[in-house]
Amino acid sequence: MRTLGIDPAIRSTGYAILEGDHSSARALDYGVITIPPRIPQSGALEAICTHTRNLIEKWKPDEVAIEGIIYVQSHRTAISMGAARAAPLIAAAQFGLTVYEYSPKKVKKAIVGKGTADKNQVAFMIRALLGLSETPPSDAADAMAIALAHLQASDPRRATILDRRKV
Amino acid sequence: MRTLGIDPAIRSTGYAILEGDHSSARALDYGVITIPPRIPQSGALEAICTHTRNLIEKWKPDEVAIEGIIYVQSHRTAISMGAARAAPLIAAAQFGLTVYEYSPKKVKKAIVGKGTADKNQVAFMIRALLGLSETPPSDAADAMAIALAHLQASDPRRATILDRRKV
Repeated sequence: MRTLGIDPAIRSTGYAILEGDHSSARALDYGVITIPPRIPQSGALEAICTHTRNLIEKWKPDEVAIEGIIYVQSHRTAISMGAARAAPLIAAAQFGLTVYEYSPKKVKKAIVGKGTADKNQVAFMIRALLGLSETPPSDAADAMAIALAHLQASDPRRATILDRRKV
Repeated sequence: MRTLGIDPAIRSTGYAILEGDHSSARALDYGVITIPPRIPQSGALEAICTHTRNLIEKWKPDEVAIEGIIYVQSHRTAISMGAARAAPLIAAAQFGLTVYEYSPKKVKKAIVGKGTADKNQVAFMIRALLGLSETPPSDAADAMAIALAHLQASDPRRATILDRRKV
């Protein structure tokens, strides 16, 4: 199965294309969609949507996995995160792809073994698990962790533990 | 000037196409984009985006005006509202249209004369101001109020009072 993992944020969205199953996986592509502050919010969201569409056209993933939002400092942040999350959801729906959401805490628990792992620990573990020759940027590592959790969830017991839901 | 006004929400997005200037306006089209609960969130957002694109293609507005989010009960609501707001922003940016945001309170103050006006009062006043033969659905009336405020804001003094900002 081929999965597109997304860790969305208005100015810095991590993405990853992973192929494999619940026991093994390899990274085909990963990176960070960076939008400079001079671009207004509407243009930034459109750019994330277009980038996601391009990734889907190029890599033809079977499904999409995205990080759920659990904790936010303020309503302002929540609104901005909700908007950033909408852009890849729209791109996925345009291609008729199903999107699954995972709690960031459960993804970290599954991948690093600790729900409170920090960004460096996730990047370090992802590098080891996928045999990458470099430590990935942390937003891309988060996207790979989500995609990896989604591949693990092809085992139904893991899907329950990971508390996944369709969005 | 022709303006597309949008009052976004995941399941019920009001829209309005108004033409005019700061002193007079008429409604060319208005309505509510309703998405049934059986459609997942990603499909709902995609549908709002596509509907907005269709409206832009049909009516060719010069600018887009959208309601800002001021008060929300919970982070969950804020995330959902942020997502709903992203869909028309993406559609507008795809056509290179500038989007202006207005505070709902200031729009009500400008149109009804009272920042705390309820939905019925807005719909009643919009019907009178635009000479409509029916009382519009409240979500459509909100979108017309935003579009009307935007036309008023073509007078720079009004733009300042309305506290508008580009998004």
